Amino acid sequence: MSMGTNEGKQIAIIGAGAFGTALAAVIALEGRAAVTLVGRDPALMADLANDRMHNAALPGVYLPDNLAFSFEPEAIAGAGLVLFAMPSQAQADAAASYGPYLAADATVVTCAKGIDRQSTRLLTEVLEERLPHHPVAVLSGPGFAMDIARGLPTAMVLAAGSAERAEEAALSLSTRTFRLYASADRTGVQLGGALKNVLAIACGMVEGRGLGESARAALISRGLAEMSRLAVAMGGSAETLRGLSGLGDLVLTGTSHQSRNLRYGLALARGEGPGLDGSSLVEGAFAAAVAARLAEHYRIDMPITQAVAAIIDGSLNIDRAVEDLMTRPLTTE
Amino acid sequence: MSMGTNEGKQIAIIGAGAFGTALAAVIALEGRAAVTLVGRDPALMADLANDRMHNAALPGVYLPDNLAFSFEPEAIAGAGLVLFAMPSQAQADAAASYGPYLAADATVVTCAKGIDRQSTRLLTEVLEERLPHHPVAVLSGPGFAMDIARGLPTAMVLAAGSAERAEEAALSLSTRTFRLYASADRTGVQLGGALKNVLAIACGMVEGRGLGESARAALISRGLAEMSRLAVAMGGSAETLRGLSGLGDLVLTGTSHQSRNLRYGLALARGEGPGLDGSSLVEGAFAAAVAARLAEHYRIDMPITQAVAAIIDGSLNIDRAVEDLMTRPLTTE
Repeated sequence: MSMGTNEGKQIAIIGAGAFGTALAAVIALEGRAAVTLVGRDPALMADLANDRMHNAALPGVYLPDNLAFSFEPEAIAGAGLVLFAMPSQAQADAAASYGPYLAADATVVTCAKGIDRQSTRLLTEVLEERLPHHPVAVLSGPGFAMDIARGLPTAMVLAAGSAERAEEAALSLSTRTFRLYASADRTGVQLGGALKNVLAIACGMVEGRGLGESARAALISRGLAEMSRLAVAMGGSAETLRGLSGLGDLVLTGTSHQSRNLRYGLALARGEGPGLDGSSLVEGAFAAAVAARLAEHYRIDMPITQAVAAIIDGSLNIDRAVEDLMTRPLTTE
Repeated sequence: MSMGTNEGKQIAIIGAGAFGTALAAVIALEGRAAVTLVGRDPALMADLANDRMHNAALPGVYLPDNLAFSFEPEAIAGAGLVLFAMPSQAQADAAASYGPYLAADATVVTCAKGIDRQSTRLLTEVLEERLPHHPVAVLSGPGFAMDIARGLPTAMVLAAGSAERAEEAALSLSTRTFRLYASADRTGVQLGGALKNVLAIACGMVEGRGLGESARAALISRGLAEMSRLAVAMGGSAETLRGLSGLGDLVLTGTSHQSRNLRYGLALARGEGPGLDGSSLVEGAFAAAVAARLAEHYRIDMPITQAVAAIIDGSLNIDRAVEDLMTRPLTTE
């Protein structure tokens, strides 16, 4: 199995949604490792292998011939890198299901951007607790699945517990178009990825209320400042928040209609109410409440995040929130 | 003339383009000062006074009844705050034309975002040299004229030589919808305003070549880092660059089709060549060459800015530039 240019490396990606499939496709195409995409649905995995297309998730993207598919957890057994590409709230369960099949020296990489709701903890912490014998890394930053899958230039961040491990994993996963920068700040990288979703909801509300692009830009700028304050209080680095996985991802998610979080904010602004029916992938809606609680716990001023949380829980209306944010005392920045 | 709620304050705004007219309208509407908009063209100024509309610049925006118009430089004589709202390259001449009419205690506020081409200096420095008896401040940040004029929520920065003076001017010019934050970092504020135009051109190129929103977000993130490096080398504060007048304005200009700089980058990507005919307001096209020279002088690594300058001067083509930027060594952020 391991021969030629792939140097015997095997990479498994669990989660056959848009993001997992995109990662699998771009890394397989590079040809330096044997890549397997693992999903739970046998019918879907058989279709992907036959059709070489995932029309529901990545319409029009050809999945390379050397990409393998499996519905069996055993398929991850030979992989040195195992990417967890399912939604945040499914990561803990996935650790339980797939943990027993991990190779002894496998590194686990969480690819979700969120905070575990049950424990209010970062996903790397959740996975480390459940998989204590494996190093746990995180992949985050500004990369839409479709952009990655189409081979457009994308740059993201791979953070691990040590700089060496991060660099090694970043090199293994990077391709000519999909570039990973290494970081040792898992806390900062994950908080950037989770908190920007909350601000993207706010950006959607600003757009939905017709407040203009200038207001959105101000919101993003002030929002990054409050994201950074919380990240630093929780042990992350402000520098990380200013990088690809903080600012970069905030800009992407806050300005693009491809973002579910932004679209959710638009819907709220249209008065469609804060219900979350069928919106299980609006990570920011969960993150808002968690972030507001964390802000309170660490006594950090996060007016935008707190307003989003209050709007979602029904205790504040949008116009009132905008009025409040605009009439805050004028201070130096 | 000075009575009621305006407390005797007079504000003059020179430059009847979109931005100057928008500032005049929103500040006049607030009613705390007597505001005069001063332009060079007698016919235009008479039309504005009669029509209470500036259809060429701000279609559909009503200009408040208490806003005065003049084409005579004498009209600025009673103003404590005089805003220079003409393009960057016209500011030095405006200082010569209007300087003799300034009140002895008038503060001058430059509202352009650029670097003086002839001297390679910041506009506050150019104005200070020509108006040595007047404090010189700068207004910058993410605010499209149309958004300001329509009374949408906007937040910008007013930087002066001292924090006290900045706070005083910021309070005088702020309204319920147009909020100015005070800063004492004129260098950082101006470099943010000038350098983001260069990056907006790059964002236009990325869009024009169909490279995707993820690439644009990465560009903005890496671009802010290089803007900050130069600003710090020139005596500005990195904190300022991360604020409204740096990051905020970069996000606005780099993601909106309302931005002339972005549209110029789009045109370059379409192969319309680097000619600047009729594009005298593409501030970033001038700023690119200046910034590239400054980067060299201060030995700062600014790969995106340098690529934009080289594309505009015809020595590099866009695809090659993207290839170069994507294949730079992978490092930590």
